[in-house]
Amino acid sequence: MTDDQRGAPGALMAREIAEQPAILERIMRAGRPAITEVARAINATKPRFVLFAARGTSDHAALYAKYLVEIVLGLPAGLASPSVMTSYKAKPDFRDVLFVGVSQSGGSPDLVESMSTARACGALTLAVTNAPQSALATTAEFHIDVLAGPELAVAATKSYTAQQLSLYLLIDAMRGGDGSAAIGLGEAAAALLADTASVERIASPFLGTERIVVTGRGYAYPTAMEAALKLMETNYVSAQAFSGADLMHGPMAMLQEGSAVLAISPDGVGGHAMRPVLDKLIELNTNLAVLGGSDAVAAGARGLVLPAGIDETVSPLLQIIPLQLLACHLAISRGYDPDRPRGLLKVTETW
Amino acid sequence: MTDDQRGAPGALMAREIAEQPAILERIMRAGRPAITEVARAINATKPRFVLFAARGTSDHAALYAKYLVEIVLGLPAGLASPSVMTSYKAKPDFRDVLFVGVSQSGGSPDLVESMSTARACGALTLAVTNAPQSALATTAEFHIDVLAGPELAVAATKSYTAQQLSLYLLIDAMRGGDGSAAIGLGEAAAALLADTASVERIASPFLGTERIVVTGRGYAYPTAMEAALKLMETNYVSAQAFSGADLMHGPMAMLQEGSAVLAISPDGVGGHAMRPVLDKLIELNTNLAVLGGSDAVAAGARGLVLPAGIDETVSPLLQIIPLQLLACHLAISRGYDPDRPRGLLKVTETW
Repeated sequence: MTDDQRGAPGALMAREIAEQPAILERIMRAGRPAITEVARAINATKPRFVLFAARGTSDHAALYAKYLVEIVLGLPAGLASPSVMTSYKAKPDFRDVLFVGVSQSGGSPDLVESMSTARACGALTLAVTNAPQSALATTAEFHIDVLAGPELAVAATKSYTAQQLSLYLLIDAMRGGDGSAAIGLGEAAAALLADTASVERIASPFLGTERIVVTGRGYAYPTAMEAALKLMETNYVSAQAFSGADLMHGPMAMLQEGSAVLAISPDGVGGHAMRPVLDKLIELNTNLAVLGGSDAVAAGARGLVLPAGIDETVSPLLQIIPLQLLACHLAISRGYDPDRPRGLLKVTETW
Repeated sequence: MTDDQRGAPGALMAREIAEQPAILERIMRAGRPAITEVARAINATKPRFVLFAARGTSDHAALYAKYLVEIVLGLPAGLASPSVMTSYKAKPDFRDVLFVGVSQSGGSPDLVESMSTARACGALTLAVTNAPQSALATTAEFHIDVLAGPELAVAATKSYTAQQLSLYLLIDAMRGGDGSAAIGLGEAAAALLADTASVERIASPFLGTERIVVTGRGYAYPTAMEAALKLMETNYVSAQAFSGADLMHGPMAMLQEGSAVLAISPDGVGGHAMRPVLDKLIELNTNLAVLGGSDAVAAGARGLVLPAGIDETVSPLLQIIPLQLLACHLAISRGYDPDRPRGLLKVTETW
């Protein structure tokens, strides 16, 4: 991309964030039939174990899907370390394994090599990409196109929620569901996008600090991971994500009065499990912003209330949207251009 | 523990760090027969997938063991999210799964509940603890005692290397090995403990900063995670661990000239895969310290050379020792007492 194609700082990232309602609707309308077909073909092979391989933002979509596989499908699941197959040349026994590679570009050589090895080692292979002609897509037996359209901003946004919805619909179809929990997500996403005042309200703890802790549990933990990555990529701050439980095991020592903390505590089981963590963060007088259900937000000093009536299993698709806006807003406030993060390229080639 | 039982700042942590050579020897001598028996019993059931459940430091020992399972045993493996079974009440199909809970105290309620559910769902269950009478140990079908002796310091040190060696011997015995790569580790650990001058030399980038990035790949990645946790617990800094590959996917944007980075790059495959990462860190003029083989250390400005001739599969047991010393040394330099990290208790009860 030439400089002429760029606009004001963050214009590209903001434009792609804003495309998400339309993309979610597109997947529901145009993507579902193919996803249902893939689910049927996978079910016919009766996989007993699911492994995901991904990097960066896509790895957080994979982590979300891992929770779905474990909770909704009741199958054991794991995140593969690509280096096991690429650097260490392991040839694991992958019979009865569904191996899912998740990547926006489908171009990362280590993922392609992992996928190829997994297929040779007996796994049923599926690529979930935004690039049907990519090496990852053509290496796998099955492919799901997340239909996000070309993603040009270095900080991935729309491909993330598109991956999440595609993976949700796949896993829901595998257990015979009709995807109904995802109906209306586009509309709810549009409502969140319109509420920039709330994003500015939760931004205040994070304006003057180089250190941010983000925390959530269960389905909301991947949101914490992805929000932290967006903050690192665009604001260059140390943003650390912890599951609420892991935070209590050690890293809590880092926090004191005034520490900047973003807690994600949606309605549902994961949010409920966050309550002792929120209590501790309030007791410590941290500079806390809460994204979640109205009860959780009421407990903190400032917060952003997520739309009510959204099933916890699909809530992460909405949770990340105000946090993408937050990262973009904070970066511009700091005088950075989130469309030109220093030292990063769109496709990272790692081996 | 009463205040009378404490000595100078960090005395307890330092004492337990120093016990590690003797504990490693004890496990080789007194622990191996029982571990070999457990390996034989597990092999008789022919597990096809391995899941680990752990928190904090023990989770890093589990991550090390996950690499061993994937590379050495050639079985798919994953890290379980305890909340899946405790909060979300999932009952996954765990037939043919070996479920391994790793915990120093064996007392964390969420791990005990996960273990109990895993057993009820058909998994073969193994607890690896420092407390044979603990709830985790008695809930599992099999138990390995890591023989570290009572661990009193809040920052876990000796239990970590004891867990690593026990898990190494287990996995090595499962594939018919004789554990010979671990012979001499106690002696090598003692040599590292004696070399406090090297620890002080690599400390300089980390003295005046609140932000530290730690990176490694493959078997050395768990070392990066554990070193970062020790730094957070005892120095209250933002210490972030990234696999070398993940660092290139986004977080590299955080780093610039003068950023404090600790890279772990031992001889072997993982260290080799770190070379492009080291090159990038040097190109950025980061304030870099390298722990690793002599080649990797020579590439950086300052470093600590690990003993030569150690197999990469057991090198992580040695890598962490100077980094435990480093965390303790830095904390004392900052005026903190690593034996009294603020806000932490030895056994964290999470649900």
